[in-house]
Amino acid sequence: MSILVVGSVFFDSIETPHGKVERALGGAATYFSVAASFFAPVRMVAAVGEDFPHHEVEFLSKRGIDLSGLQTRPGRTGYWAGRYHEDMNHRDTLDLQLNVFAEFQPRLPPSHRDAQYVFLANIDPRLQAMVLEQLAAPGVVGCDTMNHWITGSRGELEQLLSRVGILIINDEEARLLSGERNIVRAARRLLAMGPRRVLIKRGEYGVIQFSADSVFAVPAFPLEEVFDPTGAGDAFAGGFMGEIARSGDLSEAGLRRAIVYGSVMASFVVEDFGMARLRTLTAETIQHRYRQFVSLTDIDGA
Amino acid sequence: MSILVVGSVFFDSIETPHGKVERALGGAATYFSVAASFFAPVRMVAAVGEDFPHHEVEFLSKRGIDLSGLQTRPGRTGYWAGRYHEDMNHRDTLDLQLNVFAEFQPRLPPSHRDAQYVFLANIDPRLQAMVLEQLAAPGVVGCDTMNHWITGSRGELEQLLSRVGILIINDEEARLLSGERNIVRAARRLLAMGPRRVLIKRGEYGVIQFSADSVFAVPAFPLEEVFDPTGAGDAFAGGFMGEIARSGDLSEAGLRRAIVYGSVMASFVVEDFGMARLRTLTAETIQHRYRQFVSLTDIDGA
Repeated sequence: MSILVVGSVFFDSIETPHGKVERALGGAATYFSVAASFFAPVRMVAAVGEDFPHHEVEFLSKRGIDLSGLQTRPGRTGYWAGRYHEDMNHRDTLDLQLNVFAEFQPRLPPSHRDAQYVFLANIDPRLQAMVLEQLAAPGVVGCDTMNHWITGSRGELEQLLSRVGILIINDEEARLLSGERNIVRAARRLLAMGPRRVLIKRGEYGVIQFSADSVFAVPAFPLEEVFDPTGAGDAFAGGFMGEIARSGDLSEAGLRRAIVYGSVMASFVVEDFGMARLRTLTAETIQHRYRQFVSLTDIDGA
Repeated sequence: MSILVVGSVFFDSIETPHGKVERALGGAATYFSVAASFFAPVRMVAAVGEDFPHHEVEFLSKRGIDLSGLQTRPGRTGYWAGRYHEDMNHRDTLDLQLNVFAEFQPRLPPSHRDAQYVFLANIDPRLQAMVLEQLAAPGVVGCDTMNHWITGSRGELEQLLSRVGILIINDEEARLLSGERNIVRAARRLLAMGPRRVLIKRGEYGVIQFSADSVFAVPAFPLEEVFDPTGAGDAFAGGFMGEIARSGDLSEAGLRRAIVYGSVMASFVVEDFGMARLRTLTAETIQHRYRQFVSLTDIDGA
């Protein structure tokens, strides 16, 4: 089945210790969509400016991404510039121009209202809620957020979380949102806010999933070079939700395999700048790395 | 088969956000020995002062630890006092009195010279080398070290590493010793120094093992409370080497299981101050947590 995502499309200028790239295609909805498109048809709801180049529309379309929910608005596409520190776990924002994204209001084409698998990428929780209100009867709703909304729109965010099945955030956000330093206690608090699953992204240390009665931890794929961490979290969410939409398997085992596919997609994204690596990726390469993940984590295996 | 360990026995005064303890039994050789004793007979080579209490000798003996290599010397047992920060990843040393440990020279009883499984806990690499020279034909040699020796005795340490099969250090030490920030590149460099296996301890993120042709990563057990991280790394090494000595299984699968047993022992140690938790631990509880680790990491399981 297809998966619907709502979020940002940006151009990113990125500097890391390994080099730099100017105005590369980016944004949470973009990373999510491209990663998810390897697993299931994707419907993207977002806004770009009149400067959005035709060849990127073509790239997204060719990946099977339905762009009927992509609004082209007067003005320019959002723009972000950032620089990563030596350890890659921290970055400075050098420039941020919301442009058309400032006025973005998600409006779903009627054809999208039957969506069963939905991902609310990191945007204002009021807009995330607007999406849910336009859906007939969503089955699986995943959601991301960030520090800005946790501190500035906590009430709206908490209201949203009571309607979300799977929360996907990083460890810092989990601590801030829960008020707990310890990650297990943080996850318990977040589960109490509504979601049935909480997936906590830990960067180079991988992902840990909590439900009421299970915990699953998977390491990140050990890479000799991380060129650019931008988009890794969104590609993780894309691989994860995409695989769920493909399989329809919401069992513990199904979700665990989806978490590994998410980790696979994140491991590719960081191997090159922006989403360059995703542009050349094949299904075969994805399966190969999935098997490497099995070997990396299998206690009885080799 | 039995396992021989050489290292320190100390008294520790420890303060964490959860409380404090005064003059608790500690030291790398102690944590290692007690953890390993759940798997195999242990021979401990270390030095204590005349103040070392009889009930601790009894405790260690009852755990099947052969103390014929434990020297009792004129003076006092080594003493360390430390305070952990809120995040438990950092600690300050408040007091350090080497006492009899300052003059420690490992002398193996003749009965120990046939040792097949050997762990050189964190002491001066010159002393670690002295141990190897007293052994007839050691089969499996594991080794730990720390920043102090990496910067101060690099030559001696590198010479030692060419004679060591398994290096067990933490991520900071791996970076310092290799000169590489990236942990995969660091491990490759360390393998090139001699060891056939490098195990890198990552605290709350678990352990990652590298050999020439395999990588294995296991998360730490997610705990709601970490009372005191002291000794976790040494208990890991004890469970790991103890299980290898028990099974004699040096296959990839055998080593992976041993890494999980090491992680199990570390997860217990941090649940209480000093080695309090190890004093009440049972084989059954260890097996139960081993199964929890399998469930925590099994991609296809639940």
